Amino acid sequence: MSGSSSIAAELTRVLGAHKVLSSAGERRMYSYDAIQMGTVPLAVVLPESTADVVTAVKAARAAGLPIVGRGAASGLSGGAAPAQPALVISFTRMTRLSIDPLRREALAQAGVVTLSVSEAARPHGLIYPPDPASWRTSTIGGNLAENAGGPMCFKYGVTGDYVKALEFVDADGEVHHLTRDAYDLAGLLIGSEGTLGLVTEATLRLTTPPRFTRTLMSSFADVGAAAAAVSAAIAAGAVPAKLEFMDQACVGAVEDYLKIGLPREAGALLLVDTDGDDLETVETELELVERACQGAGGQVRRAADDSDAANLWRARRSVSPALGRIRPQRMNEDIVVPRSVLSAVVREVEALGQASGFHLVQFGHIGDGNLHPNILFDPRRESEEAVHALAHDIARVALKYGGVLSGEHGIGSMKLAFMREALDDGTLAALWNVKRALDPQGRLNPGKVLPALESDHA
Amino acid sequence: MSGSSSIAAELTRVLGAHKVLSSAGERRMYSYDAIQMGTVPLAVVLPESTADVVTAVKAARAAGLPIVGRGAASGLSGGAAPAQPALVISFTRMTRLSIDPLRREALAQAGVVTLSVSEAARPHGLIYPPDPASWRTSTIGGNLAENAGGPMCFKYGVTGDYVKALEFVDADGEVHHLTRDAYDLAGLLIGSEGTLGLVTEATLRLTTPPRFTRTLMSSFADVGAAAAAVSAAIAAGAVPAKLEFMDQACVGAVEDYLKIGLPREAGALLLVDTDGDDLETVETELELVERACQGAGGQVRRAADDSDAANLWRARRSVSPALGRIRPQRMNEDIVVPRSVLSAVVREVEALGQASGFHLVQFGHIGDGNLHPNILFDPRRESEEAVHALAHDIARVALKYGGVLSGEHGIGSMKLAFMREALDDGTLAALWNVKRALDPQGRLNPGKVLPALESDHA
Repeated sequence: MSGSSSIAAELTRVLGAHKVLSSAGERRMYSYDAIQMGTVPLAVVLPESTADVVTAVKAARAAGLPIVGRGAASGLSGGAAPAQPALVISFTRMTRLSIDPLRREALAQAGVVTLSVSEAARPHGLIYPPDPASWRTSTIGGNLAENAGGPMCFKYGVTGDYVKALEFVDADGEVHHLTRDAYDLAGLLIGSEGTLGLVTEATLRLTTPPRFTRTLMSSFADVGAAAAAVSAAIAAGAVPAKLEFMDQACVGAVEDYLKIGLPREAGALLLVDTDGDDLETVETELELVERACQGAGGQVRRAADDSDAANLWRARRSVSPALGRIRPQRMNEDIVVPRSVLSAVVREVEALGQASGFHLVQFGHIGDGNLHPNILFDPRRESEEAVHALAHDIARVALKYGGVLSGEHGIGSMKLAFMREALDDGTLAALWNVKRALDPQGRLNPGKVLPALESDHA
Repeated sequence: MSGSSSIAAELTRVLGAHKVLSSAGERRMYSYDAIQMGTVPLAVVLPESTADVVTAVKAARAAGLPIVGRGAASGLSGGAAPAQPALVISFTRMTRLSIDPLRREALAQAGVVTLSVSEAARPHGLIYPPDPASWRTSTIGGNLAENAGGPMCFKYGVTGDYVKALEFVDADGEVHHLTRDAYDLAGLLIGSEGTLGLVTEATLRLTTPPRFTRTLMSSFADVGAAAAAVSAAIAAGAVPAKLEFMDQACVGAVEDYLKIGLPREAGALLLVDTDGDDLETVETELELVERACQGAGGQVRRAADDSDAANLWRARRSVSPALGRIRPQRMNEDIVVPRSVLSAVVREVEALGQASGFHLVQFGHIGDGNLHPNILFDPRRESEEAVHALAHDIARVALKYGGVLSGEHGIGSMKLAFMREALDDGTLAALWNVKRALDPQGRLNPGKVLPALESDHA
């Protein structure tokens, strides 16, 4: 029997055929995430409970196989794409969700879709703030694995900030329940991309939504002016809930797609929300932002009403499909740099794009300096090596300016090589010590997050 | 040469005499924290820089000695009290502090006093919310070691929620810089009581202070009524900034001390702040709390003005000195239980106290169910074994009702034995694996946080 059919047969025996996918066609569907092709898994398990996950992990362990956890696979760094032949555990059937309005908590299994947490909480006057762009499809388990952020995170924090407790299955198939006291092992698992354990359930903190939201858009001659406006607004005391940026190429792509009258001639566009429970404060904050934009030479347009605001935000939410029309594939970078160097970074990245000949667009959560340079390409006509070389050059620009490599998309396999440059050897060794402590055989999502140590090559 | 004089001589050689304490009298001062006697250290180092810390750690390593980090030693679980002869590294001279108003960050060395962060930030319109009761003396390093909380934490989160980056020195004397991406090693260090590394500097997130605060006090016939009022207020949508509780014995002790007219006859007292930027919302929230208190039979008194409010809060801040007048020592428990079982827990703990014959008072941050039962005793006349037995019984009550053992004081040495009951064997083993990964020789604050594994006794 091949490796594939033997593990599939064993899993079918212990879990039942309806929880196992084994045909080549089915398995291939679980080889990639939203951005990266990986290795076709040997088998796919669709657990319906934590007990099923334990059974699957023990079967993989007995067979000596790696394990890759997977949510909706909307990730943008290859975290869920197997780096070698493995058992994929797909959590999409583990969707139990309950709200405790008195404790302001949601208890969500790993496969619960992100947006549905807020939808279930809303009748109780509560929301779950983390809002990755893919929240209509992404899962809580995937968000935890990548410690996902979104536009709201500048003001409200990322996924990990909302986790009160976790249940996870370790490399040996043992179940653990963690709160966030003493050693914060839960915090270590969050963002570790399934390399330290598989989260099966989370207790999430809910909050009350702001009563008022105001929106404006401002266009600028160039990116430097937009960055200066953001810095001036924050220095003046504004804490916008969202602060999004698109460069000219990105605006053009979205306008081609939506045709809603975005200013194509602008060198850069800002989209800003202020929110809160006091209308006067919310409007004062918007005014601070408006004045800062005008001070930097921006043309400001305030949203007339909620539907106008929704329209403006549709522009931002349409970036992904708009870019998909230009080239079939894209490499989506995820860098964070100090706001003070933002315009220099955007200009250097732009220049790299022009020199490379690739179609390159930039957008991101400018409030915390989180930038997404996207390299658009057609793998049938353009070299993937050249794409990776350009991505690497972009990452170097971020590091040169004191930035980091993962804002909200994780490291996955795509930024693995750059991690070595970001971490000194001693810190990388410390992280490997932690990895080995929790996964001595290296069977949990091998090839992700941590680059190999130099000494391992010696 | 004795162990003590040889390490002191070596440290004096490499650091200079002014950075080393070696006399028996001086060393004895570093053997305890605010609640626990420990072992007199072999030597004490007073580093003035991260480089000094590295030198001290390497000297201790060469001598094969354990290392105990120490801030202001205002801790309440024995975290900074050496469990065996060790080198103590006291961070009180590392007090460099700078504020970056644009990035809303403070860069603070480990020895910076907690309150001084807010004091330095306030001219820029910013504050640092974590407010442990000892904030006038406690240090950022100590707060990080214990992941300290305070009254504000119900609404605003604990120390770890405000950490953006850390510098730490590991067991080998290597310096690492961590942000909170990929593997959140920084988060693992926070709350680990110096058992995984020594934090030398932290980048802290600052926020804007609320524009308005309103205060009320309510007295109740019994603790159950106070707990019911809190649950009703939160269910009605109030998110008080502070929600503090004192039982009758505690109110009596504070009134004996302050003589400000607190209602001695009350079975329980609540102190509540609501805050925010919108006065109407803040007052509406206070009204929700007031109605909930009255609905539970409470007698409500609103603070007339800021100075009246400050007076009421002085009552809460005076609990520690007030208790110190009753008996020279106290065992301060720190349990967290679901709010729904709070009145049952308070009653069972009260009964245990009465049966034991010890003077026992209870107070705490009732909003998140964080309760501090305090056993007052005189070590010259009363048995410390009996105190520990009672403390153990109290901890069992918390665990029985689904609670946890450390709300904000840490585990230290005092709650070590109870940790075994709180953690299943597999999770404890996983935590030990992490500990060994970062401190293979077990030289960092041995005897704290993690109880020995059963298998180590076998």
